Amino acid sequence: MSGTRNFAVALRRARMPKPRLTGRPLVSQIAVPATRSFSQRPALRATKEIKYTSDAYPSLKRNPNFAEITAEDVKYFKELLGSESALIDGVTTDATDDIEPFNGDWMRKYRGHTKLVLKPQSKDEVSEIMKYCNGKKLAVVPQGGNTGLVGGSVPVFDEIVINTSRMNKIRSFDEASGVLVVDAGVILEVADQYLAERHHLFPLDLGAKGSCHIGGNVATNAGGLRLLRYGSLHGTVLGVEAVLPDGTIFDGLSTLRKNNTGYDMKQLFIGSEGTIGIITGVSILCPPRPKAVNVAYFGLESYDQVRQAFGEAKKQLSEILSAFELMDGRSQKLVHTSTGNKYPLEGEYPFYCLVETSGSNADHDMEKLEAFLESVMGEGIVADGVLAQDETQFQSIWRWREGITEALSHLGGTYKYDVSIPLPELYQLVDDCRERLTKMGFVGDDDSFPVRAVVGYGHMGDSNLHLNIAVRQYNKDVEKAIEPWVYEWIQKRSGSISAEHGLGVAKKEFIGYSQNDTNLKLMKQLKDLYDPNGILNPYKYI
Amino acid sequence: MSGTRNFAVALRRARMPKPRLTGRPLVSQIAVPATRSFSQRPALRATKEIKYTSDAYPSLKRNPNFAEITAEDVKYFKELLGSESALIDGVTTDATDDIEPFNGDWMRKYRGHTKLVLKPQSKDEVSEIMKYCNGKKLAVVPQGGNTGLVGGSVPVFDEIVINTSRMNKIRSFDEASGVLVVDAGVILEVADQYLAERHHLFPLDLGAKGSCHIGGNVATNAGGLRLLRYGSLHGTVLGVEAVLPDGTIFDGLSTLRKNNTGYDMKQLFIGSEGTIGIITGVSILCPPRPKAVNVAYFGLESYDQVRQAFGEAKKQLSEILSAFELMDGRSQKLVHTSTGNKYPLEGEYPFYCLVETSGSNADHDMEKLEAFLESVMGEGIVADGVLAQDETQFQSIWRWREGITEALSHLGGTYKYDVSIPLPELYQLVDDCRERLTKMGFVGDDDSFPVRAVVGYGHMGDSNLHLNIAVRQYNKDVEKAIEPWVYEWIQKRSGSISAEHGLGVAKKEFIGYSQNDTNLKLMKQLKDLYDPNGILNPYKYI
Repeated sequence: MSGTRNFAVALRRARMPKPRLTGRPLVSQIAVPATRSFSQRPALRATKEIKYTSDAYPSLKRNPNFAEITAEDVKYFKELLGSESALIDGVTTDATDDIEPFNGDWMRKYRGHTKLVLKPQSKDEVSEIMKYCNGKKLAVVPQGGNTGLVGGSVPVFDEIVINTSRMNKIRSFDEASGVLVVDAGVILEVADQYLAERHHLFPLDLGAKGSCHIGGNVATNAGGLRLLRYGSLHGTVLGVEAVLPDGTIFDGLSTLRKNNTGYDMKQLFIGSEGTIGIITGVSILCPPRPKAVNVAYFGLESYDQVRQAFGEAKKQLSEILSAFELMDGRSQKLVHTSTGNKYPLEGEYPFYCLVETSGSNADHDMEKLEAFLESVMGEGIVADGVLAQDETQFQSIWRWREGITEALSHLGGTYKYDVSIPLPELYQLVDDCRERLTKMGFVGDDDSFPVRAVVGYGHMGDSNLHLNIAVRQYNKDVEKAIEPWVYEWIQKRSGSISAEHGLGVAKKEFIGYSQNDTNLKLMKQLKDLYDPNGILNPYKYI
Repeated sequence: MSGTRNFAVALRRARMPKPRLTGRPLVSQIAVPATRSFSQRPALRATKEIKYTSDAYPSLKRNPNFAEITAEDVKYFKELLGSESALIDGVTTDATDDIEPFNGDWMRKYRGHTKLVLKPQSKDEVSEIMKYCNGKKLAVVPQGGNTGLVGGSVPVFDEIVINTSRMNKIRSFDEASGVLVVDAGVILEVADQYLAERHHLFPLDLGAKGSCHIGGNVATNAGGLRLLRYGSLHGTVLGVEAVLPDGTIFDGLSTLRKNNTGYDMKQLFIGSEGTIGIITGVSILCPPRPKAVNVAYFGLESYDQVRQAFGEAKKQLSEILSAFELMDGRSQKLVHTSTGNKYPLEGEYPFYCLVETSGSNADHDMEKLEAFLESVMGEGIVADGVLAQDETQFQSIWRWREGITEALSHLGGTYKYDVSIPLPELYQLVDDCRERLTKMGFVGDDDSFPVRAVVGYGHMGDSNLHLNIAVRQYNKDVEKAIEPWVYEWIQKRSGSISAEHGLGVAKKEFIGYSQNDTNLKLMKQLKDLYDPNGILNPYKYI
C-alpha cells in the first residue's frame, strides 16, 4: 500500500521532528465506501433455487389454526390499501416471479411459500391489516429490507408478508437536540446521508446499510460497527411506534432523552424480531458527525497481544476510539486470494487489528493515535502497522475487514456463528473448532476435504466474534461435528449464541444455550399476552 | 473567586501567547466533592413530624385484600433470615424508634405505617420472602437508600419494607471489559470509589450518591449528571437479577455487551420503580475514568444565548463534553444568600451555565475548551465567564449548581417539578409560571406573600428542567394555581411530567399527562401479569 506510513519506520525516526499529519477530511464530505454497501446481495431472481425452509426444517409444521388466504381476503386488502403497487397478489393471479423475492433471504438459506405481499403506507393501514388478520387468524411476517442472517424476515409457510418499504419518510430532525424521527421503512444509508448533510451521524452502521430498514434494525437490535462508541439501540432509540397483533397502535414515539413516566414499553419491541408488534416509526438520538476519522491496521504475533493492544487503545484513545476490529491471518489470506490485492503489511501475521478513531479535532486525534502507536510498537505489542493517509487508503484498509464476508461467499458454503464470548477466551473458540474439525479429518487444502478453512474475525471491542467455517459444500457430517458442540462451548463460558444477528429460524432450537428456563417462560408469557393467536411472525424462535 | 481566569481578560489578550494550562489532575486522585454527597439529608429521628401519606392523600385506601402482619409471620421471617440484625420487629415488640426512619422519606413529605422491616442478604432470601408474602397476600415495599423524591420507596399503609442494605457486595469487576457486577444494595459512591482505584468510572452520578443504592438507581432509571455523556441506564446496564412478586428469580445478569437471544427482559425492571420485581443484582458497563476534567462557568444575557452556547459546546467540545448545566440568576442569588459566598463573576446575569469537559488528554481538552470559550466570547454569546484552575475552584464552581437544592431547603417549602421539555421552550415554563403566580398575587419579598421565588435550573444537555417554587409554607391555594396548570403546559409541548425522578405517589394521578390510554393499559397488563395480587409496592403510580 504505497503512501501509507509504516510505524516501524516511524518508530526508528522517533527522535526526528514528527511530520504534521492533517487527518482525514470532514466525514460529511466523504462518499460512503463501496465495501460498506450491500454489494454482495445476490440477484433476487435466484430465489427459486433456494430450498424451502419447510423442507430444510421438517420439524416445522404449519399451524392448522391459521386460516388460508382467500380471494375475499385479497379483495379486502386491495380496497384497504387502495393502490395496485401496495399489494402483490399471488392468490388470485400468477404473480410468482414478483412474489419470490419476498419469500427468500439474501443468504439463500430460507424460503417460504407466501402468496401475498402487502405494502402499507401508514401505521393506520398496518393497524387495519392486523385487526383483520387477527380476526381471521391469518398469519403474517413483518419484513423490512430483508437483510437478516437468521431467516427471521421471510415466511416459512403461507404467512402474509407485511413489507415496510412504502413507509419511507423522514418525519423530522432537530439539529439542536440531534433527534431524528423516521418511518420504519427508511433505509439506514438514506437516513445517514440525510444526517451527514446536517452534520450528524446515525449511531448505527452495518454492512447492509444500503438495503436494511431502520424499523428492521430496531426490531432486531442490530449491533454493527459503531456500537463500541455510541452504545446499543436500547440506549439510543428514544421512541418506538408499533402496531400490536390485534391492531392496537402503540404510540411511544417520544423525542425526549429523559421520560420516567411508567414502564419503558418501547424497550420490548427492540430486539424482539417482530414477534410482539410491527414497528412503524422510530425516534433516535444522533450524535454530531465527527470532523476527523483515522484508521490504522496492525499485524500481531498472538491473541494475547491483540488483547493488550485493545487495552492500550481503550486507555490511550479513550473517547475517540470508534472501532477495534479483529481479523485472523486466515481471514486476511482469504481476502487477499479473493481480491488479488497486495497485503497492507510486508510480512504475514497470525492476527490483525483495525483501529478507527473519530473525533472533533484532527490534530488532537492524530497526536493521540501517534502516541498510542508508538507505545504499542515500542513495547512490542504490535509487530507492524500502517496508518491511512487519505480517503482511498481509509477505504482500502476497511476493505480488509469488510471484504471477509464476500471472500468467504466465493468459496462455496459457510457455517456462520455470531457469538459473544468474554474477551480472554474470545479467539480460543476458533482454535478449538479448527482443532476439532482437523482431528476429525474434515479440514484440508484439496477437494477431498469438506472444510476449506476455519476463520475468526469480529468486533473485538464488543467481545463479539464471527466464527466462520468455509466448506466446499454444505455437509451434514461437518454440521453434526459443529453443533451443538459450538453452543455447549459458548454456554460453558456464559457467552451468547447470538451476539447481534438474532435467532429467527436459524437458532430457534438453541435458545436454551443462552437463556434459562425461567427466562424462556417469561418470554413466552409476553408473547402469549400480546399475540394470543400467535399470528405474528410464527415458526420463529418464540 | 481569586485565581480563576476571567475570559474577558483572556479575550483581550487573545493576540498574546496563550499560557499553558495543565488541566486538572487525575480524577482518580480527587476526593469526591463534598457538595455531591448527600449532606442535605435530615436527621432520621425527625420522621415522626412528617404527615402520614394516608392523611395527605385521603383518596388512597388500604387494599382490604391484603393480610395484616401477625406474630406468626414475624416468627417465620426471623427463622428465615436467621439473624437479629436482619429484621426490625414492630409487630411483637415496640420498635417504633428503629422503624420510623424506614417509614419516612428524606424530603419529609411521605410517611407510612409499617411495623416490619426485613433486610435479606441474598436473592434466595428475597425469593423466600416474596413466596411467603404472595401466598399470604402481605404487601411489601422494596427500599434501597430511600433517597427518592416522589415517595416511591416508603410504605403508605402497613406494607412490609424489604430493604436492600445488607445485599452490599461488589461481586466482580473486569478491567479489560469494564463490566462491574454488584449486589443491589451497594452504595453508588462506594462503587464509584472502587472503580476509581481501577481507573474506571460509574456511568451515573447524582447528588444522593453517598446514600443511594445501585439497585434503586436502576429500579428508578436514575438520570443525573453523566447522562449527557454516557447515556441512560437502559444502554449501560448489561444485566439485572430480580425477584418477581411470586418469588421467581429472574437471572438476567449477563455481562455481555451484545446478546440478541430473545426479549430483553431486564429492560422491564429498569425504571419500573419496584412494581414488577425487586432488583437484587446489577451488571453495568463502566467507561475508563477520564484523565482530565475541566469546568467553566458563564454569565449570559438571555435564554436564547444559552441555547446558542449549548449548540456551540456540542459542536466544538463534542466527545469531551460531559455536562452542560443551566442555572437562572434567581437560583444563583439563592445560593449566594444561603452560603454567603462571593459570586464567581463580577456582574449579575439572568442566566448562568456550567460546562464540564472530561477527556483523556489535559492539553487537548484545554485547547478545545479555550477555542470554544474564545468563540462564544468573541461572538458575544457569553457575557463573562471563569475557568477553574484547580480542584478547589472546580468544587467551588460545581457548588453553585449543586447547592441550589440546599439553598432552597433553607427557605421553607419547595414545590419541585422535574420535567423534560423540548429545548426551544425549556425555560419558558419558569417565566410563564412566575408570571402566572405573580399575577395571582402570590409572589413577593415580604412575609405576606406565600411564594418567595420561582426558579429554574437543570440538565440543559438532556432537555431536563427543574422548576422550583419556593414558598414560605406549603399553601393549598398556590398548589391549586400550579397544578394541573403545569402538567397541561408540559403536555401541550409533548414534554414529560417526570424526566428522571419517577412517579411514585407524588405523580400517581398525573401520569395521563405524559402517557396515553393505550400505553397505560399496556402497563397495567404487565403489572397484572407479574403481580396478580398487587402486593409489590402498592398505592404507587400503578
